Amino acid sequence: MRALVWDGTEARVSERPEPRPEPGWAILRVALAGVCNTDLEIARGYMGFRGVLGHELVGRVADGPDEWQGRRVVCEINFACGSCDSCRAGLGRHCPSRSVMGIAGADGAFAEYVVVPVANLHAVPDGMPDEVAVFCEPLAAACEILEQLPDVVGQHCTVMGDGKLGLLIAQVLDAAGAHVLAVGRHDDKLGILRKRGIETTTLAAWLPGHANSSDLVVDATGRSDGFRLALEATRPRGTLVLKSTVAERASVDLAPIVIDEIQIVGSRCGPFAPALAALEHSQIDVRSMLSKRLPLSESDAALSAAAEPGAGKVLIDCGSSS
Amino acid sequence: MRALVWDGTEARVSERPEPRPEPGWAILRVALAGVCNTDLEIARGYMGFRGVLGHELVGRVADGPDEWQGRRVVCEINFACGSCDSCRAGLGRHCPSRSVMGIAGADGAFAEYVVVPVANLHAVPDGMPDEVAVFCEPLAAACEILEQLPDVVGQHCTVMGDGKLGLLIAQVLDAAGAHVLAVGRHDDKLGILRKRGIETTTLAAWLPGHANSSDLVVDATGRSDGFRLALEATRPRGTLVLKSTVAERASVDLAPIVIDEIQIVGSRCGPFAPALAALEHSQIDVRSMLSKRLPLSESDAALSAAAEPGAGKVLIDCGSSS
Repeated sequence: MRALVWDGTEARVSERPEPRPEPGWAILRVALAGVCNTDLEIARGYMGFRGVLGHELVGRVADGPDEWQGRRVVCEINFACGSCDSCRAGLGRHCPSRSVMGIAGADGAFAEYVVVPVANLHAVPDGMPDEVAVFCEPLAAACEILEQLPDVVGQHCTVMGDGKLGLLIAQVLDAAGAHVLAVGRHDDKLGILRKRGIETTTLAAWLPGHANSSDLVVDATGRSDGFRLALEATRPRGTLVLKSTVAERASVDLAPIVIDEIQIVGSRCGPFAPALAALEHSQIDVRSMLSKRLPLSESDAALSAAAEPGAGKVLIDCGSSS
Repeated sequence: MRALVWDGTEARVSERPEPRPEPGWAILRVALAGVCNTDLEIARGYMGFRGVLGHELVGRVADGPDEWQGRRVVCEINFACGSCDSCRAGLGRHCPSRSVMGIAGADGAFAEYVVVPVANLHAVPDGMPDEVAVFCEPLAAACEILEQLPDVVGQHCTVMGDGKLGLLIAQVLDAAGAHVLAVGRHDDKLGILRKRGIETTTLAAWLPGHANSSDLVVDATGRSDGFRLALEATRPRGTLVLKSTVAERASVDLAPIVIDEIQIVGSRCGPFAPALAALEHSQIDVRSMLSKRLPLSESDAALSAAAEPGAGKVLIDCGSSS
């Protein structure tokens, strides 16, 4: 089969053996896959991953248990052991021996087929287009903030970054009842949020007028200097949610965290069920975020397209006719 | 009067005019003052402070409202405006226009007299020796952790740093029902905790056996690399309390915070009432932490003594006979 393989030096469309199922696992025929900034960070050295890239997908079960056979699915990306303390505590996403699809120790979704644990599958509701369902994984990551901080109603929230994740987070917090201000660099991206009634501003216009003013600040800039800016915007005793995973280290003045007693919450993958429900009920506009759709044979070009400043969601058509 | 003044270059015993009271303020005749690592950090550039150093004190009201006249007191160090949003919300310690005794915009306690807001005074219980009462401010800072994270019962807590604050924090968490492991560099300091039944270990013996294992890690190392070590020790979804305020920046790999969804809680000054109560009921051993007591005329030497590796609490006798 064809797949986009990162070999530590370059991402290249290559021939790979088709995966084989083992008990408890299923083979998915990938329909659509989405390019995430994490894929781009991996190509900058993040996680030291080697293998097939990609962790956002919608596809059909090509080989698996009878009850899943042929069903259209999305798939959680953390492959947990299921038996350790973390897993028994319901924290499989933090299983210390997990692999992560396309990120750590498991081949990913920029391929014709991918093998995944059956336990990670979620059926896609009939009528939900593939190009909507493929947003389930990043939307779940946005929803994770509400798992960690359930009480955002009425809070003044600043979402920094108008990339794909930032746009999803701003909408999730807005839908949850927060007063959201989205800060970005691209007026067309921010326009997607304004259409939903969400207040937006550009980075240049924002600071210093908003220093120390937000109850909750989300850093979804994907930049190592995002943390510093987010810290400046957080009010004393406020909360900073860190969503950016970047390869390089950040130089941080820790004293303001102590002096202002800031709470910082690292936030990664999230629950698929609320994300699927939000997509099903059209609470989140994902279609406006679509920018390009390229075939698997051009998936290396898809990565380049996703790396362009201000790029929206780039999708890779993996050839299924689901 | 004599006072220890930091002029931006050196800390020198100098002559200063005696402070005068204004309505709402009181003049304290300082009895004993304690040297804190923050005083040493100020002498390394932290906060850009100029003036009389010192913020840990016990003394007597020499000039103030009748009901306070002559009483033995300790004093909260954040001088708040009392009328802003933060103050009205009960967060005077975060008042944006506050001054902080001996740290920011207000002269401190290494002096014969100091002027403070009456609202900041707490009466010292009869029978509590001065050398115990003088620990109220740093003990309150330790108690702040319980204000922020009330539910530590049964949690596996690692306290990093066997300096004065670390020893207080370990005892406070132990008294609150946590399983405490104290990590330090000085066996004599750790011995103070072992006498209280608290488990201790040296930094060399600790890592890597305890990587990602603690529910709650407190960085009280006072070192810029403490944060990195504390992060390594915190379990996924665990909490890192940051207590160290250091002048220099830290180089931080932020990715583990996101990947392991660590919560970081900055923690500064705390409530005096529980600290005074804990001292009154001898729940915390502070006497074992005393190392030197020098007169105000030698307070520059007191700073040097406090800066020695492994120094305990150095007290400055400011000449009162309270």
